[in-house]
Amino acid sequence: MIPTIETHEQVMFFDTDCGGVVHNIAYLRWIETARTRLADHLGLPLREMSESKRFPVVLRTEIDYRSPAKLSDTVRVRGRLDAIEGIRFWCAFELHRDDDETLLVSSRQALALIQMPEGKPMRLPEAWAEHYPELMVRPRRKKH
Amino acid sequence: MIPTIETHEQVMFFDTDCGGVVHNIAYLRWIETARTRLADHLGLPLREMSESKRFPVVLRTEIDYRSPAKLSDTVRVRGRLDAIEGIRFWCAFELHRDDDETLLVSSRQALALIQMPEGKPMRLPEAWAEHYPELMVRPRRKKH
Amino acid sequence: MIPTIETHEQVMFFDTDCGGVVHNIAYLRWIETARTRLADHLGLPLREMSESKRFPVVLRTEIDYRSPAKLSDTVRVRGRLDAIEGIRFWCAFELHRDDDETLLVSSRQALALIQMPEGKPMRLPEAWAEHYPELMVRPRRKKH
Amino acid sequence: MIPTIETHEQVMFFDTDCGGVVHNIAYLRWIETARTRLADHLGLPLREMSESKRFPVVLRTEIDYRSPAKLSDTVRVRGRLDAIEGIRFWCAFELHRDDDETLLVSSRQALALIQMPEGKPMRLPEAWAEHYPELMVRPRRKKH
Repeated sequence: MIPTIETHEQVMFFDTDCGGVVHNIAYLRWIETARTRLADHLGLPLREMSESKRFPVVLRTEIDYRSPAKLSDTVRVRGRLDAIEGIRFWCAFELHRDDDETLLVSSRQALALIQMPEGKPMRLPEAWAEHYPELMVRPRRKKH
Repeated sequence: MIPTIETHEQVMFFDTDCGGVVHNIAYLRWIETARTRLADHLGLPLREMSESKRFPVVLRTEIDYRSPAKLSDTVRVRGRLDAIEGIRFWCAFELHRDDDETLLVSSRQALALIQMPEGKPMRLPEAWAEHYPELMVRPRRKKH
Repeated sequence: MIPTIETHEQVMFFDTDCGGVVHNIAYLRWIETARTRLADHLGLPLREMSESKRFPVVLRTEIDYRSPAKLSDTVRVRGRLDAIEGIRFWCAFELHRDDDETLLVSSRQALALIQMPEGKPMRLPEAWAEHYPELMVRPRRKKH
Repeated sequence: MIPTIETHEQVMFFDTDCGGVVHNIAYLRWIETARTRLADHLGLPLREMSESKRFPVVLRTEIDYRSPAKLSDTVRVRGRLDAIEGIRFWCAFELHRDDDETLLVSSRQALALIQMPEGKPMRLPEAWAEHYPELMVRPRRKKH
């Protein structure tokens, strides 16, 4: 079973801008929240992190804005572990408007486990390869 | 029955700062969220607002920071209608850590109903005086 | 000479909401920025803080919203040390629209110097009493 | 001459998190600010937008986090028009620490000109093709 989570966010005034729609920073805040809950499912709970100083650090974010959310919309954020690639792992997110199932935003984030404050990248838990063999991908040479 | 609401917020990384505690802006965001839900209870729903352009506008915010919240704390925000004072009304908020009931933040906000885009203040609903007579206070001369 | 600072902020999309005006959280962010620069003038530089873990911690914020700023306005934030009251000091802020000098927001914040992570309050620098005798006020009993 | 801009941001407490480094949302806020100034250089000034309701809307954001910024760092944000691709245009951003020229973040954003509230995409100004022929690229089939 691929780890997945679902969160729900109601659009507040401070999430919108004077164009009448939700601004880019609000979507990223919701994605960050969903990713934190997903990390919890992956055995990387927030409370432990603040003690062990072992943090999942985001290396790259990709966000596609497909349709705008508006004031008072309820937004469903679905996140899942998407790929395991050497010492990096990818999470994928889809944000839909609850009412009419419109796809609002899709996003992928690449992460690594980092030991702070040294900033040293660590191996991912070995159990992941066992539990999610379908997610294993060969590390690509970085193109960006 | 005085209108009250209760919301819950889990402290995320972006809510904390490098001092290791939740920063002032995060508390205000949670208070704004709680006040929006309280306005819903008061018969001022978000969805209608965006159509009628009749918004509850904050005139004044007072926040006392009493004890810091930390990463992964769950914070309970309690809000209530606190006073009705001419064309202004006050909401009061208390934020506690869920685990140990520590009072983190207390806050009051004064609001008025404003018709946008003219910015004209409107009378408060007459039903409020009937339903919440214990909240009626004589308008003070502004001291600030 | 009372320590004062002045900062300038241009209103961005993410500072506004769908009511067409700047939202409360944006004003607080600008005030926090101004206060940090004011602390620098007061001999409490940001860089040292992150090393000494001695932080000026906000105890109370009061904000009066007087007139709304709009997209593309330039906002001038003026801050000053306003009062010294035992182990607390007050900073005062006024935000004006640059174009027409409209007063947008006024604010006061009470702070104390705290040694982290213990959270122990410290005496204010003795030089302050000497340099700013006109700002010394007798500590009040807390009313809130 | 390719349109470019440069902005400078000082890292504030609220930009950092309890991991001791700047959080992802702060980088995006700085990029949004830089892009707004870049739009101004491109003949899409903020003040006009709020009147004409013709907004440059972000379709996609890509951010690579390369090295973390810390409290009190000054961050230089350089932005430029990067490519013109049918009705889309790409802006590119690089964020460096001012002190030591460390590359912190690189980012690209794809935008289109949208007439609000209809949400209709518009042709890009014809002058762009003349002025920046080296930026013209053939529209790709969308792969994401």
